[in-house]
Amino acid sequence: MKKSFGANTLIFPTPVWCVGSYDTAGRPNIMTIAWGGICCSKPPAVTVSIRKSRYTYDNIINRGAYTVSVPDESHAAEADFFGIASGRKKDKFKAAGLTPVRSDIVDAPYVAEFPMVLECKLIHTFDIGAHTQFVGEIMDVKADESALNEDGKPDIEKIRPIVFSPDVSLYHTVGREIGNAFSIGKTLNSKDK
Amino acid sequence: MKKSFGANTLIFPTPVWCVGSYDTAGRPNIMTIAWGGICCSKPPAVTVSIRKSRYTYDNIINRGAYTVSVPDESHAAEADFFGIASGRKKDKFKAAGLTPVRSDIVDAPYVAEFPMVLECKLIHTFDIGAHTQFVGEIMDVKADESALNEDGKPDIEKIRPIVFSPDVSLYHTVGREIGNAFSIGKTLNSKDK
Repeated sequence: MKKSFGANTLIFPTPVWCVGSYDTAGRPNIMTIAWGGICCSKPPAVTVSIRKSRYTYDNIINRGAYTVSVPDESHAAEADFFGIASGRKKDKFKAAGLTPVRSDIVDAPYVAEFPMVLECKLIHTFDIGAHTQFVGEIMDVKADESALNEDGKPDIEKIRPIVFSPDVSLYHTVGREIGNAFSIGKTLNSKDK
Repeated sequence: MKKSFGANTLIFPTPVWCVGSYDTAGRPNIMTIAWGGICCSKPPAVTVSIRKSRYTYDNIINRGAYTVSVPDESHAAEADFFGIASGRKKDKFKAAGLTPVRSDIVDAPYVAEFPMVLECKLIHTFDIGAHTQFVGEIMDVKADESALNEDGKPDIEKIRPIVFSPDVSLYHTVGREIGNAFSIGKTLNSKDK
C-alpha cells in the first residue's frame, strides 16, 4: 500500500551542490542547492534553481556564469552553512575557512577544498514559479587527483558526495557499488518480450 | 591538484528515476533517466530531460503528463533495463515482470513495485540541445507504507534509491546518515564573520 503525501517536492535522491558566483563588488559568494541536475548532454549542461531573493540570483545574471562545487561528506557542515547564511551579510568562504578559487574559464569562483567542480556559462534562464532555473553550459569539469579511480576518472567512492532527502531534511553518504549501468539490465533485455 | 576533464556531463550524485507514460495506443511505457531534478518549490515541480528520438518524448507531449517512479536498489537491474530497451519494440513492464498502475490524478502509469512515485502534469517544455527538458508540476507524491519513518514520512534508508555516476556509469546505494540539513552548519553561522 502506498500513502499519499500531496503536492510536494519530495523525491530521493537529490544532490548537495554549492553554487559559486561573484557579486558586483567582485566578492566571491557560495550557496548550497538541492534543486538541480544535469539537463542536457550536448551541449553538456547543468541546471540549478534559485529564488530571486537570493544574493546568488543577481550575481549569476550579472556575470553570466556560475560554478558548481561538489562537497564531500567531510565538509557537510560547511555545505549546510552555505545554505543557511546569506552572502549579503557575510563572507561565507571566510566564515567556513574555505578558499575561493577564480575560475580561469568562467567569471565565477569555486571551492578549492571540495573534490569536484563544474565551471558553467549561463545559457538559459527559465522562470518556473518561486524558483528560477539557471541552465549552465558545462565548460569544464575538474576533480582532485586524489579522488580518481585506476582509469584516471573521478571515483564516487573517493569524491564522497552528499545525498539530500527533501522534506525530512537529512544528509546521507553514498554507499556500496551495485553494478554497471547499461549492463546489469541486459539479461532482461535479451528475454523475449 | 585538480585534473581537468573538459566539457562533460560529469557530476555526482545524479538520480535513477523511471519516467512513466502512455503511448497513443494507451500502452504503458517506462524509461530510466538520470538527467533531472527538482526545479521549483512553488509550484512543486520536477524536471526530466529526454531526447526527441525517445518513445517517451511524444508520449509526454501527447498526454501532457508523466510519472516518476523511484526504483529501490533491489530493482537496479529492472531500472537499468528500462534505460536500455525501447518501448517502441517491447512492453518493458511485461519483460521486467513489473506492474503498471494507472495514476488516478494524471494521464500516466507508474511502477507498482517501486517504493516512491511522483505524479506530474506537464507545465513547460524547454529545448536545450540534444535533450528537451520537461517540467512537471508534482500533483502528488506516494510512498510505500513499509518505507516510512516513525513520523510517517518517507525514509531514504527504507526507500533505498539508487545513485548514478555519469561517465563511469556506475550505480551505488545510499549510505549512512550524516546529519540534519539546516542544522549541522549552524555552528559556523554563529561565528562572527
